[in-house]
Amino acid sequence: ACPLTVIAGPCQLESADHAQMIAGTMKEACAAAGAQYVFKASYDKANRTSLSGKRGLGIDAGLKVLDDLRKALDVPVLTDIHSEAQCKPAADAVDILQIPAFLCRQTDLLIAAGETGAAVNVKKGQFLAPWDMPNVISKIESTGNTRILLTERGTSFGYNTLVADMRALPQMAATGYPVVMDATHSVQQPGGKGGSSGGQREFAPVMARAAVSLGVASVFIETHEDPDNAPSDGPNMIPLSQMAHLVDTMMQFDALAKANPIVI
Amino acid sequence: ACPLTVIAGPCQLESADHAQMIAGTMKEACAAAGAQYVFKASYDKANRTSLSGKRGLGIDAGLKVLDDLRKALDVPVLTDIHSEAQCKPAADAVDILQIPAFLCRQTDLLIAAGETGAAVNVKKGQFLAPWDMPNVISKIESTGNTRILLTERGTSFGYNTLVADMRALPQMAATGYPVVMDATHSVQQPGGKGGSSGGQREFAPVMARAAVSLGVASVFIETHEDPDNAPSDGPNMIPLSQMAHLVDTMMQFDALAKANPIVI
Amino acid sequence: ACPLTVIAGPCQLESADHAQMIAGTMKEACAAAGAQYVFKASYDKANRTSLSGKRGLGIDAGLKVLDDLRKALDVPVLTDIHSEAQCKPAADAVDILQIPAFLCRQTDLLIAAGETGAAVNVKKGQFLAPWDMPNVISKIESTGNTRILLTERGTSFGYNTLVADMRALPQMAATGYPVVMDATHSVQQPGGKGGSSGGQREFAPVMARAAVSLGVASVFIETHEDPDNAPSDGPNMIPLSQMAHLVDTMMQFDALAKANPIVI
Amino acid sequence: ACPLTVIAGPCQLESADHAQMIAGTMKEACAAAGAQYVFKASYDKANRTSLSGKRGLGIDAGLKVLDDLRKALDVPVLTDIHSEAQCKPAADAVDILQIPAFLCRQTDLLIAAGETGAAVNVKKGQFLAPWDMPNVISKIESTGNTRILLTERGTSFGYNTLVADMRALPQMAATGYPVVMDATHSVQQPGGKGGSSGGQREFAPVMARAAVSLGVASVFIETHEDPDNAPSDGPNMIPLSQMAHLVDTMMQFDALAKANPIVI
Repeated sequence: ACPLTVIAGPCQLESADHAQMIAGTMKEACAAAGAQYVFKASYDKANRTSLSGKRGLGIDAGLKVLDDLRKALDVPVLTDIHSEAQCKPAADAVDILQIPAFLCRQTDLLIAAGETGAAVNVKKGQFLAPWDMPNVISKIESTGNTRILLTERGTSFGYNTLVADMRALPQMAATGYPVVMDATHSVQQPGGKGGSSGGQREFAPVMARAAVSLGVASVFIETHEDPDNAPSDGPNMIPLSQMAHLVDTMMQFDALAKANPIVI
Repeated sequence: ACPLTVIAGPCQLESADHAQMIAGTMKEACAAAGAQYVFKASYDKANRTSLSGKRGLGIDAGLKVLDDLRKALDVPVLTDIHSEAQCKPAADAVDILQIPAFLCRQTDLLIAAGETGAAVNVKKGQFLAPWDMPNVISKIESTGNTRILLTERGTSFGYNTLVADMRALPQMAATGYPVVMDATHSVQQPGGKGGSSGGQREFAPVMARAAVSLGVASVFIETHEDPDNAPSDGPNMIPLSQMAHLVDTMMQFDALAKANPIVI
Repeated sequence: ACPLTVIAGPCQLESADHAQMIAGTMKEACAAAGAQYVFKASYDKANRTSLSGKRGLGIDAGLKVLDDLRKALDVPVLTDIHSEAQCKPAADAVDILQIPAFLCRQTDLLIAAGETGAAVNVKKGQFLAPWDMPNVISKIESTGNTRILLTERGTSFGYNTLVADMRALPQMAATGYPVVMDATHSVQQPGGKGGSSGGQREFAPVMARAAVSLGVASVFIETHEDPDNAPSDGPNMIPLSQMAHLVDTMMQFDALAKANPIVI
Repeated sequence: ACPLTVIAGPCQLESADHAQMIAGTMKEACAAAGAQYVFKASYDKANRTSLSGKRGLGIDAGLKVLDDLRKALDVPVLTDIHSEAQCKPAADAVDILQIPAFLCRQTDLLIAAGETGAAVNVKKGQFLAPWDMPNVISKIESTGNTRILLTERGTSFGYNTLVADMRALPQMAATGYPVVMDATHSVQQPGGKGGSSGGQREFAPVMARAAVSLGVASVFIETHEDPDNAPSDGPNMIPLSQMAHLVDTMMQFDALAKANPIVI
């Protein structure tokens, strides 16, 4: 099995400079630790808890920043798309299209994403069981595209709380597609702060390490140099200054996990 | 408080004749029992569990059937919309636009629906707490449209199961907007049958009665003359032949509930 | 079906005078409304959240108060027992032995309670499905005792939260045994206040009314003349001064529900 | 931090020979891998799903088997107790008294266990949050006994399902007491087979490895040479023949985890 891929970046695009600073830092940290690296950022946050939450650069400016960044830094880029119309332009600018969790059953969106030929990362809905994902996969596969990733980002557990069920990781891996652990969103407290979501940043490394020890293909982590002042998801992002150490530790667990694969 | 409004119809539009047969039967049953009636059907099922699930007539043919029906039978009509582009044409053909539960936090869709000036019925996401709905409401109100309805359709409860929390009804009513109990979807077993959702039809009247006794403004019920052969949601739809009796019983509870309002 | 039985009293026994005051008030309110009445109080709270929570009068003094009360006021009495040894003395002093929810799978306790010949009210554990209760029932029936009641008191829903699933009421009723809705404990927030449980008193009448509308045999309500200063469960108890009106309203729903039985 | 302790044995005591066979095999496997070993078995299963489930040897015969075993094999022994009266005799025969999850809030039982001076392992109830455990701990500490272990064994997640929240492990560890991951009960499906509990044996190593990677003090695993024919918990026990390999792998993760402690 390949070494761990780290998908990391700020929750939302702030500027070209900011994106390149984070991507550059992460690229270096991953290279030092032997990890693959994919930059992640959103050009639009389309489902903020409240209307007053900042939404980002918008699609045109945002995709240009992402395209420039991947050329300048030579790193693959992932971004999330929210409508069929966004799939084609996004696929021209980035390498991996991400289907947001709330939208993971929207047939037309899955098909439009699949038809671009880009890799498609589907986040499992907070309302879905791991064994429901083959139906989601089939919708994408119907386009002939089998470059699919499946992400665990937590399941609804009472109100304003998510829980990450570790069983979901090997269960989704049994589909044959690479599985990604979203370590920062799975510790979100959705809507937990009234007008925005809360989070438990301190548990993101816990989720990441547990998943890596089970041999996941990739870990997804949102990071920011100043999470408390980030425009979104601050409560669950990991400070950028801690990422090099975190990646280094994860790679030790990854090597051990890949040498001792779990098969269910 | 007004007498109960019954929103009822087949899960998906099958044909003009079929829609009119159901609408005519329901209109008569509601008139006999003193209930307001709104016809409901979907022209497209955009988030079927699997790709092979039937999706309906499509937007153009479907909206024409709905527009013809409301003129022919003089009943208000509700349908669900799935993208911003669908809002305007749907608002020309029907009276109430419904935001599907999975999409209840998609800011652009809420705003596009609000801007039509049509009434907007938002289904509370299976991943949301009742106290999260004011943020959803604000997005619609930002358009100046305050013709808003809020629907309880169950909350994620473990895997493949929903639970309807009765506390959500008075909690959402405290916003001042009318509350709808979706008695048939709240007994769905999402994805529970592998390639489609299961359901517990026998509990739909249980949910309806409990909600009516608490004084909800409206009950939403999917019905079909032959649920076991319906193209979608068969496991949780109520047979059309049972609706007149069900409506009649609900109206007795409604009168008692409206005479004894619950305020929290 | 019989008219509704109201099981009501303070969470814990405070004194003979206090118990008689509440029992007398409730007996009168129930008689006026046509309800059956059963007094409820605990002589020992054996599973308080924290060690510093008050536990009550103790078994000897407590049972004497209960026995005196039922003779003086001529009302049936219910109390909860926590060990096999308590069953016999409690059965000599009261009419209904109650198995606490946490203990509902303790085989020896169920059998010891059954063997007294007293009626046994089993609270469904917060960790059990309604369809798990026949196994619990069989344990009691094995003693030859079929005077069994089944109580819904909420199911674990994430952390520190319960949800009352209305489907559980007709499902448990399908066993043939009378079903009780515990309207005050089902709105508890277990452990939610750190050293004690929180609660949402305002929703207890919501739960009671929804359940009565579905035709339950009985409603269980804890009440106190000054809930905010009660030694336990204050946050979810209903003020005694509101009980007469609540019982009166419930009886109107009960009459309608019993005339229109729900059968699943 | 100390190397991992493996608490393992059959769910219930079958005979002295059977217990010694399993204890001997496990002692050897743990010694080879550098793990501490504690033998676990129950002399009585007091809360079987149904009355017909086998309950074990009983307290007198069972405790004698356990006492003989620990002397013969020189391994510490853990067993679960179900009433105050059982605490003293059990503490004379074994090293660690275990409080079953359903009973984790029963004050008198916690105190009686604490007063023996034996180590006390409390399983967190399926209905409790990790932050509720300090109240449980205080009850035991009130006896002056601070030899306490805290076990995660899964939390109610809808009906007939448990989920193990990895956040609970560092949260409970923050109390300062050693944390145990119960890898086999956390994959139980309580009551899921009607008259007995189901389970997902294949996920027990998943839970064990995830927990060990987070640095837990101990893993609890039920094992049997023929799980499908074991008298209880067969569906979730791990075959004895796989234990040596599992322990060996866990110790590699344990070494890495203890060298990289997670602190929240």
